[in-house]
Amino acid sequence: MSQRQVKAAVLLIGDELLSGRTQDVNLQTIAKFLAPLGVQVAEARVVADVPDEIVAAVNALRAKYDYVFTTGGIGPTHDDKTADAMAAAFGVNIDVRDDARAILEAHYRGATNLNEARLRMARIPDGASLIANPVSRAPGFQIGNVFVMAGVPSITRGMLQDVGHRLQGGAVVQAVAVRGKRLREGDIAAGLQALEEAAPGVSFGSYPWFAPGEDYGVNLVARSADAEALTKAGEDLQALIRSCGVDPEVVADL
Amino acid sequence: MSQRQVKAAVLLIGDELLSGRTQDVNLQTIAKFLAPLGVQVAEARVVADVPDEIVAAVNALRAKYDYVFTTGGIGPTHDDKTADAMAAAFGVNIDVRDDARAILEAHYRGATNLNEARLRMARIPDGASLIANPVSRAPGFQIGNVFVMAGVPSITRGMLQDVGHRLQGGAVVQAVAVRGKRLREGDIAAGLQALEEAAPGVSFGSYPWFAPGEDYGVNLVARSADAEALTKAGEDLQALIRSCGVDPEVVADL
Repeated sequence: MSQRQVKAAVLLIGDELLSGRTQDVNLQTIAKFLAPLGVQVAEARVVADVPDEIVAAVNALRAKYDYVFTTGGIGPTHDDKTADAMAAAFGVNIDVRDDARAILEAHYRGATNLNEARLRMARIPDGASLIANPVSRAPGFQIGNVFVMAGVPSITRGMLQDVGHRLQGGAVVQAVAVRGKRLREGDIAAGLQALEEAAPGVSFGSYPWFAPGEDYGVNLVARSADAEALTKAGEDLQALIRSCGVDPEVVADL
Repeated sequence: MSQRQVKAAVLLIGDELLSGRTQDVNLQTIAKFLAPLGVQVAEARVVADVPDEIVAAVNALRAKYDYVFTTGGIGPTHDDKTADAMAAAFGVNIDVRDDARAILEAHYRGATNLNEARLRMARIPDGASLIANPVSRAPGFQIGNVFVMAGVPSITRGMLQDVGHRLQGGAVVQAVAVRGKRLREGDIAAGLQALEEAAPGVSFGSYPWFAPGEDYGVNLVARSADAEALTKAGEDLQALIRSCGVDPEVVADL
């Protein structure tokens, strides 16, 4: 398996994610959407609604990764600073654009007036292409290798439907997960490291869990783009757990 | 209110957060814990279990913020790379330390053997102080302005109890939130911007929501370290919502 690894970063934008007001769910949504397309999320950042911070983060990430996916900050209010920050990051102009304005005009016709605030949502950096919003219509946009989406989770999910077909994925990393109830990490650590060292194309992870009713255990996960190596890794993990006197249970994973 | 703003970063470490396998909850836990202590989370990053990435992130963040809080990667298995990465970031030695070893010896006495893998959890960078772990005993540590904690959410919460008393907080930012059902962001955007411009010590945020049953609305949030300005901001937000013919509802926020 020598297919190229395609790596992406996620940039979550919004004061509310940092104040603790809002629990982010978009990182997981995006990661799960991209994985089967052969795009691996390799880093994520969360920044406040501060233009300089947004510009610095997106410029660092777009230089380092194949793709960047941002959420948040493209609505009609003064705290929505993402579109202007993207224009600044790419050094291009930004203004109300006819195609975006037409989408909003069709949506708001009659019921609500398309005032100056709503027209902010038709401001698109020069050179960007629109990303359709099947939920509330105001579009996102793609500029270079950066996909700029809304932060409301249902809208993020909707916009991803107009993103997947634009991506050139690489190797698809798949995972097998095996659960060992009442297994302790310290007892399988040496065996797990031996597996990692013997299988260069597979990465192994160990995730302990503690359930409220005083129960505990470990989930062992192998990840690889090589299906054959992954099958063997799954069998090796089961054998490792059995060697501790625990019955392994293969569980669903990403 | 001229009390200093104390800013922090959160660094979440673990492949499982980027693959989509695990939904992070520690960022919100830490932000909500720090806010009443007068420490504001200003940025967060998520990196994989890759030493160079961990070192680069922690060095960037500890130089920029008053405090850094990390979670993940301090267990006994080969994919736990955080402790060694912190030693590398600070340019200090790391080895099994007697006080950490004594904690593990007391915990594992009899029931389980303190093997080489478990002893990895007693590896502490030179100059660090231990952070107590009331859940599973293996300690975290503080080195400089960086607090290194476990990633399992119950253990993160437990370790924070031994962190708060070490912090020098500044201004405590408080929030008021007012909910407008069937309010549309585009109708209050101009009024909200006017409020933001008239109240330099207050920041206003607008958060639209869409409920499954086709209902929708906006939560307007004001944040400030100035209690008097915040009270006025809350009243202004209610008046703004009323001016759109909607009954405002003051809701609990952070």
